[in-house]
Amino acid sequence: MKTYTKKITINTEKRIDFIRITDKVREVVGESGIKEGLVLVNPMHITASVFINDNESGLLKDFEEWLEKLAPKDKDYNHHQTGEDNGFSHLWRTLMGRETTVAITEGDLDFGTWEEIFYGEFDGQRDKRILIKVIGE
Amino acid sequence: MKTYTKKITINTEKRIDFIRITDKVREVVGESGIKEGLVLVNPMHITASVFINDNESGLLKDFEEWLEKLAPKDKDYNHHQTGEDNGFSHLWRTLMGRETTVAITEGDLDFGTWEEIFYGEFDGQRDKRILIKVIGE
Amino acid sequence: MKTYTKKITINTEKRIDFIRITDKVREVVGESGIKEGLVLVNPMHITASVFINDNESGLLKDFEEWLEKLAPKDKDYNHHQTGEDNGFSHLWRTLMGRETTVAITEGDLDFGTWEEIFYGEFDGQRDKRILIKVIGE
Repeated sequence: MKTYTKKITINTEKRIDFIRITDKVREVVGESGIKEGLVLVNPMHITASVFINDNESGLLKDFEEWLEKLAPKDKDYNHHQTGEDNGFSHLWRTLMGRETTVAITEGDLDFGTWEEIFYGEFDGQRDKRILIKVIGE
Repeated sequence: MKTYTKKITINTEKRIDFIRITDKVREVVGESGIKEGLVLVNPMHITASVFINDNESGLLKDFEEWLEKLAPKDKDYNHHQTGEDNGFSHLWRTLMGRETTVAITEGDLDFGTWEEIFYGEFDGQRDKRILIKVIGE
Repeated sequence: MKTYTKKITINTEKRIDFIRITDKVREVVGESGIKEGLVLVNPMHITASVFINDNESGLLKDFEEWLEKLAPKDKDYNHHQTGEDNGFSHLWRTLMGRETTVAITEGDLDFGTWEEIFYGEFDGQRDKRILIKVIGE
């Protein structure tokens, strides 16, 4: 059994953004030399998500509008009593999910045609780390 | 360490449906010969979910009504500018989650009494694949 | 390859509660002797969640208020025709997610500064089990 760990850093220009990271994850799986196994991908932060969906700009816009509807940015969250202003970011990350686990088969991500891995940033403009952990043989 | 990969195909009669797949996943774990480890189950599509909940028809109806409330089918999503009509399917899949990872102990799914694995189809009536990846020993 | 399985029992005083379980998971990873791998943590019940977010009491209150808004306790769910009164618990668990998978690196949870593991109870006041499965080497 082998494992391989890589941490990458992302700093988005916008506070809220979606970044496609499929190629980066694929590259790390290649580096690992692992042919059969699993790869876990997650932000090391609690106001960001890693998720799998369609690489279509309209849909990414739909996500942002829908998240705003379900958990408005402007609401006076209890969390803000600590001096924070990112209550919504924690809720958006909850809706989009923290992590994804992807199967590795024959040395590559075992994906359907339209599956793409995204990093969802909900409180950016600062360095954020993504953890990629590969396990298998 | 061993791994085992199986892909199964589902084609639902209805556009939206929930299919219990616990027995199928259990069968694949049996075929794998793996006694201790993890099994990852996910659709290879971005308008479907794999999730764990109760096998109770009223609750499955509740899920559908609730998803409709949080992300209505009829809304004019940005995604529809591509010619698609399934914006809601992507959002429903997000709410229900993409994947589940289940522990395997003593050769079986390590489940509580009421845990059942479901495939949630949100844009069906076509062939869709589910990936089952077993890893362990 | 090694695996290690532990089940812990929680019985909350309140029907709805959030319990930080990071230290317990860390302890189990230590017991396992596994230095590199993954740990899966999930409730063995369908009205509870395991998730990762901030250990801040205001935010935990925000979660509860927000869940109530998206899936009210008092609604007459179809599920209640079975005699149950916990339709909302199943939906809240869906929003918060069932499980988390965490990377283990150098014998410890590979976490960012603010990541904490929580058990979210949505129908408590009874014994509930949490499964911790460690896999690696």
